[in-house]
Amino acid sequence: MIKVGIVGYGNLGRGVTLAVNAASDMECVGIFTRRDPSSVCPAVNFPVYSVSELERFKGQIDVLLLCGGSATDLPKNTAGLLKDFNTVDSFDTHAKIPEYYSSLEKVAKENGTLAAISIGWDPGVFSIARMLFGAVLPQGNDYTFWGKGVSQGHSDAIRRIAGVKNAIQYTIPKDEALNAVRAGHNPDLKTRDKHLRECFVAVEDGADKSAIEQQIKSMPNYFADYDTIVNFVSDAEVKVMQQKLSHGGFVFRSGNTTDKNAHLLELSLKLDSNPEFTGSVLTAYGRAVARLAKEGKSGVVTVFDVPLKYLSPMSEEELRAHLL
Amino acid sequence: MIKVGIVGYGNLGRGVTLAVNAASDMECVGIFTRRDPSSVCPAVNFPVYSVSELERFKGQIDVLLLCGGSATDLPKNTAGLLKDFNTVDSFDTHAKIPEYYSSLEKVAKENGTLAAISIGWDPGVFSIARMLFGAVLPQGNDYTFWGKGVSQGHSDAIRRIAGVKNAIQYTIPKDEALNAVRAGHNPDLKTRDKHLRECFVAVEDGADKSAIEQQIKSMPNYFADYDTIVNFVSDAEVKVMQQKLSHGGFVFRSGNTTDKNAHLLELSLKLDSNPEFTGSVLTAYGRAVARLAKEGKSGVVTVFDVPLKYLSPMSEEELRAHLL
Repeated sequence: MIKVGIVGYGNLGRGVTLAVNAASDMECVGIFTRRDPSSVCPAVNFPVYSVSELERFKGQIDVLLLCGGSATDLPKNTAGLLKDFNTVDSFDTHAKIPEYYSSLEKVAKENGTLAAISIGWDPGVFSIARMLFGAVLPQGNDYTFWGKGVSQGHSDAIRRIAGVKNAIQYTIPKDEALNAVRAGHNPDLKTRDKHLRECFVAVEDGADKSAIEQQIKSMPNYFADYDTIVNFVSDAEVKVMQQKLSHGGFVFRSGNTTDKNAHLLELSLKLDSNPEFTGSVLTAYGRAVARLAKEGKSGVVTVFDVPLKYLSPMSEEELRAHLL
Repeated sequence: MIKVGIVGYGNLGRGVTLAVNAASDMECVGIFTRRDPSSVCPAVNFPVYSVSELERFKGQIDVLLLCGGSATDLPKNTAGLLKDFNTVDSFDTHAKIPEYYSSLEKVAKENGTLAAISIGWDPGVFSIARMLFGAVLPQGNDYTFWGKGVSQGHSDAIRRIAGVKNAIQYTIPKDEALNAVRAGHNPDLKTRDKHLRECFVAVEDGADKSAIEQQIKSMPNYFADYDTIVNFVSDAEVKVMQQKLSHGGFVFRSGNTTDKNAHLLELSLKLDSNPEFTGSVLTAYGRAVARLAKEGKSGVVTVFDVPLKYLSPMSEEELRAHLL
């Protein structure tokens, strides 16, 4: 049995908890939280400890599944945890991955531990598709679309505007763009062509809605480069939408082997629960990290480094006989 | 530069030739054929040798890309070639893969060589999808559909019937089945529910068409379990269809993380040229085999064993920065 620790119990921690519980080759040593452990009621009856108690579990946990956020939790905490434990995380700030990788590689090598970083569906499953597709069809174009689904970062950005009580933002791929790619037209797509942003905003009493709408639509990086729809709704309506954490997306590779012959490769995900699926991916890579560490591997790995067989509880013989 | 030999020059050999020519990190030492080398006119101006001359290239070729068929060529020849060379092949007789694997593993280990077997799109890219999807969504069902595309084996089977001059057979996925899977219904699909078989048959003068149609439709393993459509056409019409080697298909994983939350993962390929795309996949795995062999790896590997980074000419840093 692979002994797993779960660090953090938000939406992702809950998803990981369910996935570890469903894995017949894993047992959960504990959920480790920054909150008062008695205040956490996990979806599965795993023991809950304060994260400050983690140290005494050194040597008793094969891999920690880190369920903190990429903005502050992971950059702040992963290196410290990696001194004593193997880790898997879902670091997803694409631009900062090389820096994050380097900072952890040093710690892992010094301590003989192993970290799998940027695991989930993007980065993660989508990265596998981008890499594989590009390697087997070198002459071509990549297209990644996200949604329909909630962008937590964009929802947060709206909530920081004065007069906004609550908000949720959906990223929606544009059908015209998807259809042009699927038809093999290899379109040159600008940011605005690919995705639409739809916002549902609850405001404080007496707030200036048209000023807020203007502020959202002109926000640099987040909304200015997109077609953005702003809907004003009640806080109760936003809260209902916040219950549903569905997401998904598409990775395409469209290219040619000769002038005459074109090919289209497509991966798509339709997810009812983003955190439950991400938690399930993290758990599969937890299995891989535990096994690779047992074989003596240390350092930092991504989805590009891990042979896929390590993700499955099936034996190599079974995989070759049934899935090849 | 990776030094490549291409063994066999049929449709697949031609596809590999084009792919090797397009790879900036590869050079082709030669195409090796069983025919008279002067009778082979390759798509790219690579030297052509008799396969009997291969032996003298030992030590000068990093990897052989084997372009023979799975029925007789590969089972007969791969083990012999593997004594002196690293190899990549597209062995696709699913039921015989474990036996093929074992027979080669012994030779490779004894000679310190490396073979990648069953490389292409199915087995190959589709196997990656089946394995990855199952590992990240353990509770669910797998569905693989092929087509629309030509099945060489089924076309051959028709041509063996007395009175048949020429024939081509298309495997076509049934829309009702695809739609039921895409809608997340997790249908229980029988062989007949998934694919339709459409045949275009040219007969000898005076042949009994209705007897031939009956023979095709009742042929065990090949057609009896399917809805089969038989069209009688001229030999010239069959020959035109035989020019177009398009194919494709779909891999789905449909499952749940909890009772409430379902997920659908889908990979699809739309290929204008089956042999050109298969050749391109073989070439990417040729890169991987050459690199892994250089690192000292020997034995037999499949797509489940090879870390994806080995397929790409990009550096690990570039992959992390641009594709993760």
